[in-house]
Amino acid sequence: MAHWQDLARTLERGLFDGVFLADVAGVYDVYGGNPNTALRTGMQVPVNDPFTLVPVMAAATEHLCFGVTGTIPYEPPFAFARKLSSLDHLTDGRVAWNVVTGYLDSAARGAGQAKQEGHDTRYEIAADYMDVVYKLWEGSWEDDAVAYDKAGGVFTDPARVHEVAHESEWFQMRGVHLSEPSPQRTPVIFQAGASAQGQAFAARHAECVFVGGALPGLVASLREQAAAAGRAREDLKIFSMAAVIVAETDEAAEAKLRDYTAWAQPEGALALMSGWTGVDLSRFDLDARAEHLESEAIQSALSGLGLHTVREWGERLSIGGGAEVVVGSPTTVVDQLEEWVETADLDGFNLAYTVLPECFEEFVDLVVPELQRRGRYKKAYAEGTMREKLFGRGARLEGTHPAAGWRASD
Amino acid sequence: MAHWQDLARTLERGLFDGVFLADVAGVYDVYGGNPNTALRTGMQVPVNDPFTLVPVMAAATEHLCFGVTGTIPYEPPFAFARKLSSLDHLTDGRVAWNVVTGYLDSAARGAGQAKQEGHDTRYEIAADYMDVVYKLWEGSWEDDAVAYDKAGGVFTDPARVHEVAHESEWFQMRGVHLSEPSPQRTPVIFQAGASAQGQAFAARHAECVFVGGALPGLVASLREQAAAAGRAREDLKIFSMAAVIVAETDEAAEAKLRDYTAWAQPEGALALMSGWTGVDLSRFDLDARAEHLESEAIQSALSGLGLHTVREWGERLSIGGGAEVVVGSPTTVVDQLEEWVETADLDGFNLAYTVLPECFEEFVDLVVPELQRRGRYKKAYAEGTMREKLFGRGARLEGTHPAAGWRASD
Repeated sequence: MAHWQDLARTLERGLFDGVFLADVAGVYDVYGGNPNTALRTGMQVPVNDPFTLVPVMAAATEHLCFGVTGTIPYEPPFAFARKLSSLDHLTDGRVAWNVVTGYLDSAARGAGQAKQEGHDTRYEIAADYMDVVYKLWEGSWEDDAVAYDKAGGVFTDPARVHEVAHESEWFQMRGVHLSEPSPQRTPVIFQAGASAQGQAFAARHAECVFVGGALPGLVASLREQAAAAGRAREDLKIFSMAAVIVAETDEAAEAKLRDYTAWAQPEGALALMSGWTGVDLSRFDLDARAEHLESEAIQSALSGLGLHTVREWGERLSIGGGAEVVVGSPTTVVDQLEEWVETADLDGFNLAYTVLPECFEEFVDLVVPELQRRGRYKKAYAEGTMREKLFGRGARLEGTHPAAGWRASD
Repeated sequence: MAHWQDLARTLERGLFDGVFLADVAGVYDVYGGNPNTALRTGMQVPVNDPFTLVPVMAAATEHLCFGVTGTIPYEPPFAFARKLSSLDHLTDGRVAWNVVTGYLDSAARGAGQAKQEGHDTRYEIAADYMDVVYKLWEGSWEDDAVAYDKAGGVFTDPARVHEVAHESEWFQMRGVHLSEPSPQRTPVIFQAGASAQGQAFAARHAECVFVGGALPGLVASLREQAAAAGRAREDLKIFSMAAVIVAETDEAAEAKLRDYTAWAQPEGALALMSGWTGVDLSRFDLDARAEHLESEAIQSALSGLGLHTVREWGERLSIGGGAEVVVGSPTTVVDQLEEWVETADLDGFNLAYTVLPECFEEFVDLVVPELQRRGRYKKAYAEGTMREKLFGRGARLEGTHPAAGWRASD
């Protein structure tokens, strides 16, 4: 508990908008066909329930917000919707949900399926799941349903509470949402899928999107699709993954990178990538030159990154897990971040950790002041919920968002 | 958050073993065939996810333990087991699970079933669910699986982690538990069912049992069945529900009871009782004398309680929700509690709340010192996990408990 509360205080000291708690609902067992490499290297296993950390970190902070991955096939929507409403109440509206459709057969097996559904079907299920939770969050209780009328003996006006019903191929349920309206009702919606279906889903549902790197094409495509879905430019914030290794000087930062790399375990990173892609990278000779590998897809991935072997890919991934990596003094780091923001039309960054807690302590102490000096970073938190802080408008979703269509009419 | 943290600090100041967070996975809609009475009177609705409160209260305390209701059909076992392990880690082993098999059709509908399974089938499902979570908690990771070997690059020894498999009519899953062993592994198991199946379940699985009142017959029956299941007298703690209204004098306490009763809403309590029993009590004239009611079961329930009308039953239930109620000065209260402990062979009490937080503040300030003066109450917390504090032995379950059968052999 002390670890997480100290981390939360560090991030709030640095005026971070939020902390993002990733999750994975199974073990990475594509690499070698078993979870041994993931277990040995501690690659996202063990992985405790990230939702249990939100109250811990919220208790130690006032403004820091919390984005948490929730994997859709993993928990039924009725219980999940209540959990998020409860956290939104407890934190006074500082909660976001990173919608993940699942990508590991091991997670599906844990949840009782023989294997996961196909990629397109998972997005179909996800869209249906969103409808269920939107109905519960937006449509079950009217704003003024709770009367708190002691004298009249009325806690809630039953006429202003509505049973939600959903009948589809994937979800069948009927019930009154168990939480009264929370500050944001629907938590801020994050999404990170880069596939065609992922982009379409993000353009429709997401308020914040994570992209893996500073990718101008992907950013432009997301913005175009969101506009086509009737949403405004300012309705979608796009954050790139970046791993920052900073020190007083470029030389000291480079030395730190060399030290980190000496501890890194490329096979663990390859187990991660195998889980993401479904391709067992242990089939390849880690030290063979790319041109001798049997897979054109892998040859092309390596050449796109300017790498020569699968082992080099593992080494690259083992710092920041695939994020853009920037190493240097505060000036060097901020120069690079500024360039990425401009060239890729980004709204900000999702900082991957390297070594906890020092990577965030150093960012707060060295990079944040330089960002502030250049007018690129806030000097105080805005008041209000996460949605108010991020978007500078109301706590509730805009009327153009699909969730708004489920609001109860008065 | 402040409400819950203040409450936790009050309870820890009073050396309470724990706080019990009840839950209900649906609305009470048997009374009148709709949830209107429950909503109007705020009868367990809204009801936020109680698991989100454990980290909040744990962050404000050091010794206080947490028992939380988890309703079995409501969350798949793989995710549920991880949530409990995560909370056991976060709290250094201060977590108990109150196993509830469900009793509301409304909860089943929320979870996607047309209606809940029958009573006996629910216990069959519950026993099967216990096997799944016991396997995950006790059998997936050996005690020394996590090596934390930085120099050798080994976080976990994969040979000491085992995939769990379960194939039954009710649950099919396969997976590695996602949490490393927590201090208690299996959380302390609570149960409260009083039916024949409920008692058999408790005798086999429960370490702590809640009974509704000071009921010597039920207590003796539970102890006999636990002994028949090969468990020792000290393996089972039995707590009775009690609601205490205390003041400096008997007269002041009686005045407080009158004040509380004036605010009580008998119909809300009847909606609660209708949900528990499945009998729609709104069908009866609330003010008709018992002998004129059409139901022999209701006549018998009223006469057993010395009551004349259904409204009186609602009034009785509206203070303490069916718990034994004791009203008076500290001396009067402790005399009564002592008598119940002796005559019913109880290990302690589960205190129902009347008005929060004053009912617990007054208990701590007035009743605890009197209990201590008589040598009936501890003067300091024992060290260790909840299981160590409650039973004065190890953090893990005894070998005679059915969960122990799933332990991985070395």
